Amino acid sequence: MKASIITIGDEILIGQTVDTNSAWISAQLTTVGIPVIETMSISDTREHIISAIDRLNKVSDIIIITGGLGPTNDDITKKVLTDYFDDTLVQYDHVLERIQKYFDSLNRPMMEVHFQQGLLPKNARIIDNELGTASGMWFTKDRLNIISLPGVPYEMKGLMKKVIDLLVQEFHLEKIYHRTIHFQGMGESTLADKVSDIEEQCNEEGIKVAYLPSVGLVKIRLSGPEDLSPRIDERVQEMYNRFPKHAFGFDSTSLEIELGKLLSEQKLSVSTVESCTGGNVAGRITSVSGSSDYYLGSIISYANEVKSELVGVPSELITDHGAVSKEVVESMAENGRRLLKADYCISTSGIAGPSGGSDEKPVGTIWIGIAGPDGTHSKRFRFNHNRSRNIESAVIFSLNFLRRVILGLQEE
Amino acid sequence: MKASIITIGDEILIGQTVDTNSAWISAQLTTVGIPVIETMSISDTREHIISAIDRLNKVSDIIIITGGLGPTNDDITKKVLTDYFDDTLVQYDHVLERIQKYFDSLNRPMMEVHFQQGLLPKNARIIDNELGTASGMWFTKDRLNIISLPGVPYEMKGLMKKVIDLLVQEFHLEKIYHRTIHFQGMGESTLADKVSDIEEQCNEEGIKVAYLPSVGLVKIRLSGPEDLSPRIDERVQEMYNRFPKHAFGFDSTSLEIELGKLLSEQKLSVSTVESCTGGNVAGRITSVSGSSDYYLGSIISYANEVKSELVGVPSELITDHGAVSKEVVESMAENGRRLLKADYCISTSGIAGPSGGSDEKPVGTIWIGIAGPDGTHSKRFRFNHNRSRNIESAVIFSLNFLRRVILGLQEE
Repeated sequence: MKASIITIGDEILIGQTVDTNSAWISAQLTTVGIPVIETMSISDTREHIISAIDRLNKVSDIIIITGGLGPTNDDITKKVLTDYFDDTLVQYDHVLERIQKYFDSLNRPMMEVHFQQGLLPKNARIIDNELGTASGMWFTKDRLNIISLPGVPYEMKGLMKKVIDLLVQEFHLEKIYHRTIHFQGMGESTLADKVSDIEEQCNEEGIKVAYLPSVGLVKIRLSGPEDLSPRIDERVQEMYNRFPKHAFGFDSTSLEIELGKLLSEQKLSVSTVESCTGGNVAGRITSVSGSSDYYLGSIISYANEVKSELVGVPSELITDHGAVSKEVVESMAENGRRLLKADYCISTSGIAGPSGGSDEKPVGTIWIGIAGPDGTHSKRFRFNHNRSRNIESAVIFSLNFLRRVILGLQEE
Repeated sequence: MKASIITIGDEILIGQTVDTNSAWISAQLTTVGIPVIETMSISDTREHIISAIDRLNKVSDIIIITGGLGPTNDDITKKVLTDYFDDTLVQYDHVLERIQKYFDSLNRPMMEVHFQQGLLPKNARIIDNELGTASGMWFTKDRLNIISLPGVPYEMKGLMKKVIDLLVQEFHLEKIYHRTIHFQGMGESTLADKVSDIEEQCNEEGIKVAYLPSVGLVKIRLSGPEDLSPRIDERVQEMYNRFPKHAFGFDSTSLEIELGKLLSEQKLSVSTVESCTGGNVAGRITSVSGSSDYYLGSIISYANEVKSELVGVPSELITDHGAVSKEVVESMAENGRRLLKADYCISTSGIAGPSGGSDEKPVGTIWIGIAGPDGTHSKRFRFNHNRSRNIESAVIFSLNFLRRVILGLQEE
């Protein structure tokens, strides 16, 4: 059983909209063991829709289509699909009633075009949409299943949950088991090299291994049939245990979420004193809902006067060593910890670029400090990216630096 | 001349990664007048790659492929394409040298797998990648052009800029003249309604008008053949002049860049005191290179104790009015202005969500304050999104609020 996804709409093809629907639907289908072999975006024309279906029909059993179901005239998907399946549109009274109620609840009048949304193919299975006016439609002929859903993400998601239940029921699905391990501060190839023995074993056992890198981070995903789940768990744990400094979590998580959990569990609080990262460490920490339980506040000391006057870094330190130095970043962390009354304070000072670099301290040189109850740690990093990636890298490395310090895993 | 885009990688098909590359590439191709007729995501297997190329070859002249060029074993795109074009991989010394330098600058050893990145097809045009180890490759046979780029977005973007220049050169593309106007704080439909007369005139003159909305912002893009450029400039200026509070810039710019220019020109400085935005206003301001000329620093007062003790907001104000109030946000701005010795201070306090809301102050309620040499202004906003979008909206509105105050355009 294989699936493919078609998103319909010019806004994707001219780059106005990023298609987030396909990824979401793919993730849902994957968890019930239906592999998605292809996703595509096409424009809202009869010719493109039919040619896409004709082709995908040959390679997949289920085609999920999103978009093209709005009430306006340029949305033609419903008509094209109804014709494709030799069906006819008839009025569904219960759908019309629901739409009427929907408009009543919004206190808005129902317009002529909205009555069209009650006209649906006679032989398709209709999937009720409580969040909008366009119903889901499941067309079947022989082996082919086409499920058409509206493109508005939150309406699509509501309907897709129903679709997943229907699919599991209808096709008695075998599940695929996925596990993901998150790593920080290790390149994809170094990591691949260091787990090559485990990867080899996975290959022998029929477990698929994939590497998913992003700025400062790499994820490794293991997947295989449900009956391999104990083996997969074992390999995942082996990989995780091999890198206590770098492996920080499993499955859907993030460094800020894991750090937040650690701080909450140990009833610890954190603050930041940032220079080159300009508030982005704080921004990342507070992106987690509930972060007010462990995050207190920050001082962004961009100007040297703020470093000395507000944070209390001795001016001589700045004059003697420069703002981007071990001495200054440690003083920032220590003073920040005291001023903000936190258990830990992260500090950053560096040259994000593109200007401001020197031979001794080239662009991308960033010092990160951590002050805590057991003393102060600091480390010099050298990133080699553009401004925004240098900043993002510093943020990511600083969060894992704190995690390591709390767990007693920092280098000496 | 038509293009299609293939993104390669299982991470998209299992829903772990949203494909943002296709939208970005589509937007770039559209600006040089090459329509994208289809985008697709497939897995990294020989069979799928070849079948996708065979098919798209029939309907498009250019196929842009992203992804599948990493140094690990599961990335096979380079090999498949080289075979497809009956080419052979040879060592490119200058590429290897560049990769060697790249690793030297990172102070990391080059590993066995990285040497593979110096092996590239003999007859393809190689496009140098200064931002990573995987080169771009342009394969040509008969009418078919396949351009293969790495999937890491920032590397892809760097290479794609070169590709656009090469395409324009190679195919003598008729240049399309584009102008963009940026608006903040106005919905797409309101804006469309208020410029409908200018839009009508554009239609008559053969100028295309497109609306590009994003969180808190709308761009209007006017485009047409090069010889219409004086007319396009005129219409752009008309639209801009009509909305002094909302229109803030032209073409490739951003609110933070325009605010930075304004502060620099008027030799003014800014600081922030943030609660719910958690450092994101500062982060946005400092994303601009050279922002140290006008940005001094911030206090992120997430906890109420930091608001009162470090910022100096009287505790009674917080007790009497709550932290999310006109009184507190104005006090934050005024104290921040004094403490950070800046001409202006932006302050924020609100409920980003998903929890913490009440009937009186529902999730999304955010107060923004601006203290300046001519007094203090504040405004209550009510956003209606998830946590991250509420924060982003507050950041955007706060930057334009400051811009308006400096220009004397705030509401009374």
